[in-house]
Amino acid sequence: MSELREPRFEDFTSWLCVRDELRFRLDASRMGMISQDLDALAPAMEKAFDAMASLEKGAVANPDEGRQVGHYWLRAPKLAPDADRRAEIEGVLELIGDITDAIHSGGIKPPKADKFRNLLIIGIGGSALGPQFIDSALGRPGRDRMRVYFFDNTDPDGMDKVLGAIGRYGLTETLALVISKSGGTKETRNGMLEAERAFGEAGHRFAHHAIAITGIGSKLDRHAESESWIARVPMYDYIGGRTSVMSAVGLLPAALQGLDTQGLLSGAAAMDAATRDRDLRKNPAALLAACWYFATNGKGEKDMVVLPYKDRLELFSKYLQQLVMESLGKELDLDGNVVNQGIAVYGNKGSTDQHAYVQQLREGVNNFFVAFIQVLKDRTGEFFEVEDGATSGDYLNGFFMGTRSALAEKGRQSLTITVEEVSPRSVGMLIALFERAVGFYATLVNINAYHQPGVEAGKKAAEGFLALQKEAEAALRGNLGKAHSAAEIAAVIGAPDRAEAVFLLLEHLAANRSDIEQTGGMEPAAARFSVR
Amino acid sequence: MSELREPRFEDFTSWLCVRDELRFRLDASRMGMISQDLDALAPAMEKAFDAMASLEKGAVANPDEGRQVGHYWLRAPKLAPDADRRAEIEGVLELIGDITDAIHSGGIKPPKADKFRNLLIIGIGGSALGPQFIDSALGRPGRDRMRVYFFDNTDPDGMDKVLGAIGRYGLTETLALVISKSGGTKETRNGMLEAERAFGEAGHRFAHHAIAITGIGSKLDRHAESESWIARVPMYDYIGGRTSVMSAVGLLPAALQGLDTQGLLSGAAAMDAATRDRDLRKNPAALLAACWYFATNGKGEKDMVVLPYKDRLELFSKYLQQLVMESLGKELDLDGNVVNQGIAVYGNKGSTDQHAYVQQLREGVNNFFVAFIQVLKDRTGEFFEVEDGATSGDYLNGFFMGTRSALAEKGRQSLTITVEEVSPRSVGMLIALFERAVGFYATLVNINAYHQPGVEAGKKAAEGFLALQKEAEAALRGNLGKAHSAAEIAAVIGAPDRAEAVFLLLEHLAANRSDIEQTGGMEPAAARFSVR
Repeated sequence: MSELREPRFEDFTSWLCVRDELRFRLDASRMGMISQDLDALAPAMEKAFDAMASLEKGAVANPDEGRQVGHYWLRAPKLAPDADRRAEIEGVLELIGDITDAIHSGGIKPPKADKFRNLLIIGIGGSALGPQFIDSALGRPGRDRMRVYFFDNTDPDGMDKVLGAIGRYGLTETLALVISKSGGTKETRNGMLEAERAFGEAGHRFAHHAIAITGIGSKLDRHAESESWIARVPMYDYIGGRTSVMSAVGLLPAALQGLDTQGLLSGAAAMDAATRDRDLRKNPAALLAACWYFATNGKGEKDMVVLPYKDRLELFSKYLQQLVMESLGKELDLDGNVVNQGIAVYGNKGSTDQHAYVQQLREGVNNFFVAFIQVLKDRTGEFFEVEDGATSGDYLNGFFMGTRSALAEKGRQSLTITVEEVSPRSVGMLIALFERAVGFYATLVNINAYHQPGVEAGKKAAEGFLALQKEAEAALRGNLGKAHSAAEIAAVIGAPDRAEAVFLLLEHLAANRSDIEQTGGMEPAAARFSVR
Repeated sequence: MSELREPRFEDFTSWLCVRDELRFRLDASRMGMISQDLDALAPAMEKAFDAMASLEKGAVANPDEGRQVGHYWLRAPKLAPDADRRAEIEGVLELIGDITDAIHSGGIKPPKADKFRNLLIIGIGGSALGPQFIDSALGRPGRDRMRVYFFDNTDPDGMDKVLGAIGRYGLTETLALVISKSGGTKETRNGMLEAERAFGEAGHRFAHHAIAITGIGSKLDRHAESESWIARVPMYDYIGGRTSVMSAVGLLPAALQGLDTQGLLSGAAAMDAATRDRDLRKNPAALLAACWYFATNGKGEKDMVVLPYKDRLELFSKYLQQLVMESLGKELDLDGNVVNQGIAVYGNKGSTDQHAYVQQLREGVNNFFVAFIQVLKDRTGEFFEVEDGATSGDYLNGFFMGTRSALAEKGRQSLTITVEEVSPRSVGMLIALFERAVGFYATLVNINAYHQPGVEAGKKAAEGFLALQKEAEAALRGNLGKAHSAAEIAAVIGAPDRAEAVFLLLEHLAANRSDIEQTGGMEPAAARFSVR
């Protein structure tokens, strides 16, 4: 590792990966690498290129789930490994176009209004983060074809708040998109039921306001079919949630909003082409993966702080938090060894974050590297000077450069990604860049980037708690008029070792069921539960 | 450290800090501490109690800046160390009440509408994060007295986007609050100028739509006075930006929005009272600081992942990111030793984040502990079952319990904070809890939690780059018609060692000034700049 400071001009230029055809640049000069560091990674990167080539050709790149990994085909269906896949992807694109035209023209319209003007997206994880990022990056408030809202959790109060923002009358012209690949995600199911109820209370039939995006034959698909929803758009099992933004999950909302989905796809396809380059120094995704490897010692020893200097990219850090952490955060490698991999990701936007936690980045614990994202074009329309010769955008750029320098001065690593503007094309590029970097990095550290085995445990445990809640509630209701401790109820239902859980469940019930009462305060041993 | 797994009921109850008077509980049973760990910290915590008591009595607790630290007085002015401070704080509260009454009644109104209905808050860092968190936690879309928007950066496109959301007509009934203690923050100055321009273009005089919240006699204060703005509300130097939410910075927006500011203050005051308890196990802020110390080895060795299971608290993690990282991320301790302290903070909300990065938390690199926040009350109004015996809120609670178990099963540490509901009072409590925990922890690791010396470096460097930009632009314009490389321009202005910076500055200018052209692509050695 070289000494970290402001690099000399020659060092700066020698660590740049410039792709003029994309108006894109990656600057790795402030990571403190020397050429030998990169050379040492070259053989492993060759394997990563091979693995990626196989994946793109249709290999079962997600072995645990026995699945192909097809998100690169979404923006280049002709590269799909067989005619069926290609037809599926092209069919969805056509369906999205047809639905969008019909909604925009009023050919499909709500029963009690002339047009759908609001979009309520009901989904979680990959089925929400992609659309949220696209809306935030590319939405044009006041000029979009539809206004977008989200149910992205199972928090009833959160849903009530969204419904308050839409307004009771607003529901009349609201189209709901219910998104779940498996069709069995409980948060999404609950969101759908809460929405159904709200539409019903406002005098609308939900089916006349709803489209499903889901796997063919899933529970949601069958429900939507039997209720005669407006449409059903298929999802396929070779597209993972965190890479689904260029499937119907991201494209249908974007198209309905009136955004340029073709630009998104072509930007991603162009970055895909550039990141198939087998020259590590000319391949921005490979160089990015190499930076991660170098910075974290191939073990996640440092966090990645994502700092786009652009308001529209604020949610990109959150999007990447999912893409990177869910893909790379794995207990086992492909050979079954315990490796506890991953790279923690956080960040919001500059220069705002300079007034929040950049203090710690410069002076505090050196457990991170920064991924700066610089956008050259400041705004549409004419520039406006806030003082002689300087615009707000010049300040933004100055703060980016200033913070980068201030960090380098203290030996903190950073890399910088530069794009010309925030546009559908560049957003497509950025997403594709990180998708492929994640894929390369996974090969470097020998893990499966495409499954999420650790997510099941929490869900299963939650199901167990819900079952326990029913037992505890039944036991309490079977003892009307008496006040019981949680430990007593736990004993009654034959789960004396689960007194903590029974306490928490009863306490939560007491806060939300008007006929269940808690006395004695919040001390588990002192609290008593009874039915009024 | 004990083995980490689901604690026995006795262990669970023995690690709880219950404050029934606050309807509040902190559960430290899943941190893996044993009693001796806490006993070992007791003497240091005594010092922290002493330091905090002195601070509250008016000691100069921020020695580098020679300042008192007064945020605890904001919610209990009678505890202020002298009559002047008390009068200042009470005076601001009165002024906020007067302004709010006048705005709500229409006594103060915009020249071309009957009432102010929109609020545009122009501020950054502590002058934006607090109001943003309060709005997000307590706002009631469709029912608030005013609708809130933010300029929280110097991104011109970001500001254009906000103006698009307000709409040209909307400006007619928009009140701007310009917030900057020093009155010299460039991002805020730029935001003010951009707003001034937008109001002007829509035919309004900005002064008739603007209130300043700033230090008495600051540049902003003098500007607002000379332009006869609607009002000027003072800020005092004993309130730091990251703890300013209960000063005019947070209270005036909240009051204008129609939120219960008295509840916010009384909740904070009640938590302040509870966290003055010198019994470590009964003092939730002290126990929280002890958890941090234990988890991070007093050196920031682990990140804190903040996971509130409540949509309304999603921004709390971002708020805490600033409060904790800017306060604790310090290079030097109070004796001048290099310590590189800090605790990295990130997180959004559960159960949404379970579908993003909880995969890594359970299986990946074990470099974190989780701070769960549980809210007992699910929603206002009647409950609604999504299936037999279970509501959306029961699911949310089940997922919280399930994830907590799944993490404990894999030896990942967590603590849980439980409050009854999201209300002005509980939000005030939560803010006060973390403020005091930060203060205690700072004493435990012997640092100044109330300054931010590392922030200056980036600002100074940015100023240098803006000055360099002017020189480079002048040199380029002095050579009309000729195309130059960045290295040539750098040499011309006598800064041959700053060719990288000159390149980046000229490239940014070329992207934003229609008469400056860049040819030759994005390679610094190949790019040529000229004036058309």
